[in-house]
Amino acid sequence: MAVSNIRYGAGVTKEVGMDLQNMGAKNVCLMTDKNLSQLPPVQIVMDSLVTNGINFKVYDNVRVEPTDRSFLEAIEFARKGAFDAYVAVGGGSTMDTCKAANLYASSLHSDFLDYVSAPIGKGKPVSVPLKPLIAVPTTSGTGSETTGIAIFDYEQLKVKIGIASRALKPTLGLVDPRHTLHMPGRVVANSGFDVLCHALESYSALPYHMRSPCPSNPIFRPAYQGSNPVSDIWAVQALRIVAKYLKRAVRNPDDLEARSNMHLASTFAGIGFGNAGVHLCHGMSYPISGLVKTYKAKDYNVDHPLVPHGLSVVLTSPAVFTFTAQMFPERHLEMAEILGADTRTARAADAGPVLADTLRKFLFDLDVDDGLAAIGYSKADIPALVKGTLPQERVTKLAPCPQSEEDLSALFEASMKLY
Amino acid sequence: MAVSNIRYGAGVTKEVGMDLQNMGAKNVCLMTDKNLSQLPPVQIVMDSLVTNGINFKVYDNVRVEPTDRSFLEAIEFARKGAFDAYVAVGGGSTMDTCKAANLYASSLHSDFLDYVSAPIGKGKPVSVPLKPLIAVPTTSGTGSETTGIAIFDYEQLKVKIGIASRALKPTLGLVDPRHTLHMPGRVVANSGFDVLCHALESYSALPYHMRSPCPSNPIFRPAYQGSNPVSDIWAVQALRIVAKYLKRAVRNPDDLEARSNMHLASTFAGIGFGNAGVHLCHGMSYPISGLVKTYKAKDYNVDHPLVPHGLSVVLTSPAVFTFTAQMFPERHLEMAEILGADTRTARAADAGPVLADTLRKFLFDLDVDDGLAAIGYSKADIPALVKGTLPQERVTKLAPCPQSEEDLSALFEASMKLY
Ligand SMILES: NC(=O)c1ccc[n+]([C@@H]2O[C@H](COP(=O)([O-])OP(=O)(O)OC[C@H]3O[C@@H](n4cnc5c(N)ncnc54)[C@H](O)[C@@H]3O)[C@@H](O)[C@H]2O)c1
Ligand SMILES: NC(=O)c1ccc[n+]([C@@H]2O[C@H](COP(=O)([O-])OP(=O)(O)OC[C@H]3O[C@@H](n4cnc5c(N)ncnc54)[C@H](O)[C@@H]3O)[C@@H](O)[C@H]2O)c1
Ligand SMILES: [Fe+2]
Ligand SMILES: [Fe+2]
Repeated sequence: MAVSNIRYGAGVTKEVGMDLQNMGAKNVCLMTDKNLSQLPPVQIVMDSLVTNGINFKVYDNVRVEPTDRSFLEAIEFARKGAFDAYVAVGGGSTMDTCKAANLYASSLHSDFLDYVSAPIGKGKPVSVPLKPLIAVPTTSGTGSETTGIAIFDYEQLKVKIGIASRALKPTLGLVDPRHTLHMPGRVVANSGFDVLCHALESYSALPYHMRSPCPSNPIFRPAYQGSNPVSDIWAVQALRIVAKYLKRAVRNPDDLEARSNMHLASTFAGIGFGNAGVHLCHGMSYPISGLVKTYKAKDYNVDHPLVPHGLSVVLTSPAVFTFTAQMFPERHLEMAEILGADTRTARAADAGPVLADTLRKFLFDLDVDDGLAAIGYSKADIPALVKGTLPQERVTKLAPCPQSEEDLSALFEASMKLY
Repeated sequence: MAVSNIRYGAGVTKEVGMDLQNMGAKNVCLMTDKNLSQLPPVQIVMDSLVTNGINFKVYDNVRVEPTDRSFLEAIEFARKGAFDAYVAVGGGSTMDTCKAANLYASSLHSDFLDYVSAPIGKGKPVSVPLKPLIAVPTTSGTGSETTGIAIFDYEQLKVKIGIASRALKPTLGLVDPRHTLHMPGRVVANSGFDVLCHALESYSALPYHMRSPCPSNPIFRPAYQGSNPVSDIWAVQALRIVAKYLKRAVRNPDDLEARSNMHLASTFAGIGFGNAGVHLCHGMSYPISGLVKTYKAKDYNVDHPLVPHGLSVVLTSPAVFTFTAQMFPERHLEMAEILGADTRTARAADAGPVLADTLRKFLFDLDVDDGLAAIGYSKADIPALVKGTLPQERVTKLAPCPQSEEDLSALFEASMKLY
C-alpha cells in the first residue's frame, strides 16, 4: 500500500533494488549505523541491490544522535562518491545523516552553516536539485522518512539544531514492520515517546489561523504551519495507536501486531508534525540532549554518553502540558482521554493536571527515569538549559502560548522529578 | 494551512494569482461552467489574476456532467490557446474537463481514446509533461482536486468512463469553504452523497494485501490499491463529518460551519478513495448516469436531462452494502454506527441490513428520490444497466467480493425502490 511517498507493508524493503532501478540509479550510497549494519534490515537491502545489479557503497559510520562532525564525515563520503541515489536504513540518526549528505553533496560549494536553520545557521533556502533518497526506518520513531528535517548536535554550542527544507524530504519511504522485531526494548520505548510527543505537540500547537505574521505570498509559508484539520487527524490517530500498543510493543519483542502498529504510528505522527510542527517538548529537548554529561542509555549499543531523543522530549511533557493547557483545555482533556484517563467529570481548569498525571503514570509504567535529575541534571544546569532553548524559535513559537525565560526555567525545574 | 498539494482556508482563493506568478505562468486558461461564471468564486479568481498582472482567457463552456464531445471542445480551446497553466473553478465537471484539456493540449498528436481507460480506450500511460493546474473546488464534492481522474459520458456507448493517471493530479488545490455558501440545496445534497459513497466504498474496498495479482515491480502498482491503514483514516474521518454535518449543510444555506466541514470532508474522502479506490456504487453509477432519459435534476441550472453523479452513486448504496457486508461485517457495522445506528446488539449476520436501513433513513431524511424507478428506470432497463457496468472493471474489481452478471442484475433490481 502506498500513499504520497510512503509504501507500507511486511516485505516492501525487498523491492528497494527495483525502485532504484526504476529511478535509473547506477551508483548508490547505502547509509546505516555500525549496529544496524550487522542486522537483517541492512542485509535485506543489500541482497535486493545485488539481485537487481545495482552498484553501491556502504557508509556505516553514522553516529547515533549525530553531531556536526559526524554529519561532515558522511558529507565527505558522499561528495567523494558522486552518488546518483541514496538509501538510508536505520532510525532518525541514519535518515537525518543521509539527508544532510545528499544535500551537501548536491551543493558542493556550500558551507555547512549555509543551510542550517537561523539564528545559528544562515537558513538559506535550498535551490539545488537533490538526488533521490529512499528511507527505510527501523525505529518507531522519528517519522523522518516523511519530513524535510535533519537534526544534529552542534557540539561547539552543545545544542541540537536542524536543517529544514522541503527539498530534504525523502523521495520514498519504505515502511516495513518486520524490521521492528529487531529493536531492543528501550529503543522501542524511547522512539515510541518521540511518536507520543510528535502527536501531543502537533495536536496542541498554535492553530494555523492564529499564526502570525500571515505570509505576504504563499511561497513564504513556513514548513510548520500550526495545528490544522489535516494534521489533527494524523496526530489523533497516532496518539490512539500509542495508547493501545506502545506498552505491548516495549514488553513483547515478538508482538508483531503491536510493533507494526507503532511503526505505522511513527509515520502518521511524522506526517502530522511535519505539517503542523512541534513545540516546547522538542524545543527544550535540544539542550537536554546537547548538554549530556555522563548518562548512558540502556540498550543503545554506542560508546558515548547520550540521552536518546525520545527520552529527552518526553521528560518535560508533564510540565509542558500543564503549562499549555490553559490555552486549549478541551484538546488537552481529549489527549488525556485518548491516553486512558477518565475525563467525564474533569473541568477545563483541571485539563493540565489531568493530562500531566496521565502522562506520569504512562511513563512510570514504562520504567522511565525519574525526571531530569535522574539523567544527570540539577538546578544549577537550568540557566544553560534555558539558554539552549532560546534559539529554538523555529519550534517554540508554535507553542499555543508564548513563554518567557522565567517560564522556561520553571518548566525545567518542574521536570527535575516526575513521580 | 497546506498539506501535500492542498491549501485549505477561508480566503485562500485570493492568492491564486500569486501562486501562478510563483509558477512562472504568463498565459493562463481559466475554466468554469456557464452558471459559475456569474458567481463570486470565478470573480474572486479573475480579480486575483488581474491584480497580479496575469494574462488569461476564460473557457466557460464546461458541460455539467461532461461528455466526450464537451471534453473535445475544451481540448480544442486549450490546444489553440497554448496555455502555460490552468485554473479550474467549479465542481467535478469543471475540474475533470480541465484535466483532460491540459492532458491533450500537452500531447498534441494523441487520439482521444489513447488515454481513456481500457477496455473502452487504449489506457496508454501518460509520459508527456503536463502544465501546472490549480483546482478550486466549489462543490463538496468529488475530491477531484486531489485525484488523477477525469470522468466523462461516452455518448456513443451511453456510459461514463474515465481517464486515470497520476499525471492528471492537480498541482495545487485551493479549498476555500466560502465558495460553498453559493451552492443550491440539491447540489449540496448530491455532491455530499458522492462524499458519502467515496468514504463507504473506499473503507469497504478489498484490502490492499488481498489484491491480486501482486505487481512484479513496484512501478506497476495500480492507482487504486484497495483499502489500507492510511486510506481508512481518511474514509472514517470523512464519514464522521458527513454524519455530523451533511443534513445541516443541505438545510441551511448559511451554516458556514457545516458547509466548511463538508468541503473538507470532500477533500479527505478524495485523498482516501484516490488511494484505495471505489467499487460497486461507482461502477454501477456510470450506466445510471449514461443512460439517463428525461430526468431533470432540481437546482441544476442546465438545459439537458441529467442524473447528478452523487445521486447516481447513492441510489444503489443500500443494495450494494447489503451485498458486500458478508465479507467484512465488522466494518459494515462500524460504518452504520458512524452514521448513527445503534449497533450494540447487532450480530455480524445483520451487518448488511443494519447499514442498508441506516442509509435508507439518511436518504429519506434528505428527500432523495425513491430509487431508480423514481428517476425513470424500470425492470426492462436492467440488462442495459448491467451491460454498462461490465466494462467498469477498473473499479468493480475493488469490491470486497466478486460479482456475477446475475448479482449485478439483482443489485439494480433491489435499487428500483428504496423506501
Ligand atoms: N528528522 C526528523 O524529522 C526527526 C524527528 C525526530 C527526531 N529526529 C532525530 O532522530 C534521532 C533519533 O533517531 P531514533 O530515535 O530513530 O534512533 P537512532 O537512529 O538514534 O537509533 C537508536 C539506536 O537503535 C538502534 N536501532 C535502530 N533500529 C534498530 C532495529 N530495528 N533493530 C535493532 N537496533 C536498532 C541503532 O543502531 C541505535 O543504536 C535524533 O537525532 C533525533 O533528533 C529527527
Ligand atoms: N475526478 C474525480 O475524482 C471525480 C470523482 C467523483 C465524481 N467526478 C465527476 O464529477 C462530476 C460531478 O461534479 P460535482 O458533483 O462536483 O458537480 P458539477 O461540477 O457537475 O456541478 C453541478 C452544478 O452545481 C453548480 N455549482 C457548482 N458549484 C457551485 C457553487 N459553489 N455555487 C453555485 N452553484 C454551483 C454547477 O454550476 C452545476 O450546475 C461528474 O461528472 C462526476 O462523474 C469526478
Ligand atoms: Fe522528535
Ligand atoms: Fe464520485
